Amino acid sequence: MSDAAVLARLYAVILSRKGSTAADSHVARLFAKGRQKIAQKVGEEGVETALAGVAGSDQDLVGEAADLVFHLLILLAERGISPDAVWAELEAREGKSGVAEKAGRDK
Amino acid sequence: MSDAAVLARLYAVILSRKGSTAADSHVARLFAKGRQKIAQKVGEEGVETALAGVAGSDQDLVGEAADLVFHLLILLAERGISPDAVWAELEAREGKSGVAEKAGRDK
Amino acid sequence: MSDAAVLARLYAVILSRKGSTAADSHVARLFAKGRQKIAQKVGEEGVETALAGVAGSDQDLVGEAADLVFHLLILLAERGISPDAVWAELEAREGKSGVAEKAGRDK
Amino acid sequence: MSDAAVLARLYAVILSRKGSTAADSHVARLFAKGRQKIAQKVGEEGVETALAGVAGSDQDLVGEAADLVFHLLILLAERGISPDAVWAELEAREGKSGVAEKAGRDK
Repeated sequence: MSDAAVLARLYAVILSRKGSTAADSHVARLFAKGRQKIAQKVGEEGVETALAGVAGSDQDLVGEAADLVFHLLILLAERGISPDAVWAELEAREGKSGVAEKAGRDK
Repeated sequence: MSDAAVLARLYAVILSRKGSTAADSHVARLFAKGRQKIAQKVGEEGVETALAGVAGSDQDLVGEAADLVFHLLILLAERGISPDAVWAELEAREGKSGVAEKAGRDK
Repeated sequence: MSDAAVLARLYAVILSRKGSTAADSHVARLFAKGRQKIAQKVGEEGVETALAGVAGSDQDLVGEAADLVFHLLILLAERGISPDAVWAELEAREGKSGVAEKAGRDK
Repeated sequence: MSDAAVLARLYAVILSRKGSTAADSHVARLFAKGRQKIAQKVGEEGVETALAGVAGSDQDLVGEAADLVFHLLILLAERGISPDAVWAELEAREGKSGVAEKAGRDK
């Protein structure tokens, strides 16, 4: 299965957990805890991915990157934003610079 | 263009910047700074995404999420890991749980 | 000079920059950018400190820890909270547990 | 008790937990997990402090700041670095700039 299918399907599954009360669902529990807790998870997974990037095995990094993308999709779902908006933003930047750069956006 | 095409093409562009000395390329400059700096950017973008998640507009969040995914792809490229490994990991978890969950992986 | 004097005096200097328009002051510029940007710096310095903790020299870690404490004091100042409240919280926990622990506070 | 006494005493208590096998000690458990896990905690508490800074009550922020300082002291202890080195670094910067600034250190 292509990556598109994986991410789009994962997002659909996540959306289906919104409002669910399934106690055995990590996603449903996160939605119940609210936006701030979900955002916190994204920040924490960013930290873990960074640390795995410098000090972890390839498998560690892949696992943390998967956690990061997964929780990012949950945060987007909580806000009611489709991940397609993110892919479109990346594509728009690519179009502008011709080199897929975050040109002139340094903060 | 589908998301798959965007992410895969973006990764290819990033890879092509490895070893480049183009001074006007954000990606080439990051590669020159090395793995720790790239990992740092992923962690920092995770923080910015989390903050945009609770206190930013939809457009802010989309922009930060795009930054986060972009720098995650650079970190993977620096480590020589294809993003396909991350999509495969997400799919494998989905297959195991049947509900796309990070079941039993709480730390 | 004792640490108490350093942190208390540093906080006083930071407070004095609130409302300042000194263009050459990192603190005054941060206050002008607002609470979210200051909070972002704290999160980013947390990431840099974590990375220095696993992959940096002692001097790197000391420098990042100083950056982190410095920006934490700025965030407290922006919110109008004295760092004494933080020391008191740490002391209260210590008193409760007898072992300076964050007992039973795992999230 | 002054802040100096609180932080210095807290650091001494933390140091005393190094090598301890007390199962009921959060600090001893963290030391047992190793440097990367301790660094991760510092990064995560940085994220939580940032979020509390923009979206939490004063009490939330004080609690997260205390967690952050606490885990920073543990990371320093794990590396065998006294927090005095951090206070000295902050004082040295203050001396250099006359305004307690992180002058010219922007990255």
